[in-house]
Amino acid sequence: MNKIQPSIVLVRPQMGENIGAAARAMLNFGLTDLRIIAPRDGWPNQAAIDMAAGAFDEMPPPRLSETLAEGCAELHFLFATTARMRDMAKPIFTAAAAAQESHTLIHSGARVGFVFGAERTGLINDEVAACHAILNIPVNPAFPSLNLAQAVSLIAYEWFQHEHQNTLPATGITSHAPMDALASHAELENLFTRLETELTEGGFFKTPEIKPVMVRNIKNFLLRADMTAQETRTFHGMIAALKNKKI
Amino acid sequence: MNKIQPSIVLVRPQMGENIGAAARAMLNFGLTDLRIIAPRDGWPNQAAIDMAAGAFDEMPPPRLSETLAEGCAELHFLFATTARMRDMAKPIFTAAAAAQESHTLIHSGARVGFVFGAERTGLINDEVAACHAILNIPVNPAFPSLNLAQAVSLIAYEWFQHEHQNTLPATGITSHAPMDALASHAELENLFTRLETELTEGGFFKTPEIKPVMVRNIKNFLLRADMTAQETRTFHGMIAALKNKKI
Repeated sequence: MNKIQPSIVLVRPQMGENIGAAARAMLNFGLTDLRIIAPRDGWPNQAAIDMAAGAFDEMPPPRLSETLAEGCAELHFLFATTARMRDMAKPIFTAAAAAQESHTLIHSGARVGFVFGAERTGLINDEVAACHAILNIPVNPAFPSLNLAQAVSLIAYEWFQHEHQNTLPATGITSHAPMDALASHAELENLFTRLETELTEGGFFKTPEIKPVMVRNIKNFLLRADMTAQETRTFHGMIAALKNKKI
Repeated sequence: MNKIQPSIVLVRPQMGENIGAAARAMLNFGLTDLRIIAPRDGWPNQAAIDMAAGAFDEMPPPRLSETLAEGCAELHFLFATTARMRDMAKPIFTAAAAAQESHTLIHSGARVGFVFGAERTGLINDEVAACHAILNIPVNPAFPSLNLAQAVSLIAYEWFQHEHQNTLPATGITSHAPMDALASHAELENLFTRLETELTEGGFFKTPEIKPVMVRNIKNFLLRADMTAQETRTFHGMIAALKNKKI
């Protein structure tokens, strides 16, 4: 089970039972990299262990972090799993398409994470904005609320089905940058943080109220570029050069 | 929800929680015909209702029977869901293939059931023998035991995906910005020209020789973002703000 595989990232999960059921479902489909961000009831959690049917004994300990940025620092491509459609300019994938895309990414050397929000509330907008794409599982609109572990299970299932297809058709889904060079989440966050600081100092945000929305909009279109690490360095250089300009 | 759809048949389920979670997952994917054969703890079951998140209120009452033969009397085609491979001369389907086959059957007027055995023990050989085909969900052989409700969820999910195939994005990559809002070539060239000028004045290009290559590199990654017209205006604003910064 040493192969590179996607990470499952649970953000602020509430019920230990769901964390355990998610871990069991992950391992059913060969996934073992679980990351838990700010779990409500702390960690370790006996209810999670009870529900995991032994899965935690067969996988590395879940990685615990306080923030999404910290928990996903070295990942390159994050799918934000959402039930509701968000008004964000990001690519949207079904679970099957996301599984296929993640295979393409992973086999090219990128590290992929599937990010799940808390039960009921899901991911907040800033968390969705920090991800590269949206994963939307089509459900019955009259009864759309998927259990958290079920959602994890469906993604893991789709991953496994694609992993075990003998021939993955070369469909040429996107033309990303060369994958081995994709910027990590931390490199992108670093760039965004600097950009936000410099733009604030430059008076870009006319009012404090408008700032969060504008920051999200900027992240959305810059994330769509799927920048390489080198390209983030170029962008840093562009910021420095623009600041240097005498006016 | 009056369309003909497959039935979910739970044979000798033990935990009420699993029956409830199965019902919730069914309704998430639009299935409402649940049949329960000889449940260990009787029926109705409070644990099932508690786990169903209200699903039982939105579907007809589950049909309770003592035997598989009785519970599936008027169905035409039964898939026996099994974890282990059985030594039986029957067609074997993956979940995706079974969903496709069941659509074909149902649209031809046949009634289809997906039959699930008890937790741990699964279906007995006589029950598998009574079914028309075997449905085998490929799993990690080192940790194969799927939770009952998860298994139901995967089948319901696959059914729903096939049912809605025509309305789902086929390849995943879809909605960036609405196409009519995409920046025109002229708007992009205008942005790139300005950026190049400002970067030149800011000393970004260390030598004249390197400039054409760097300009191409910047265009490459900015073009990958598929910016809207509004986003190019935001970018112009970012350039102006960065220039304004006092250093």
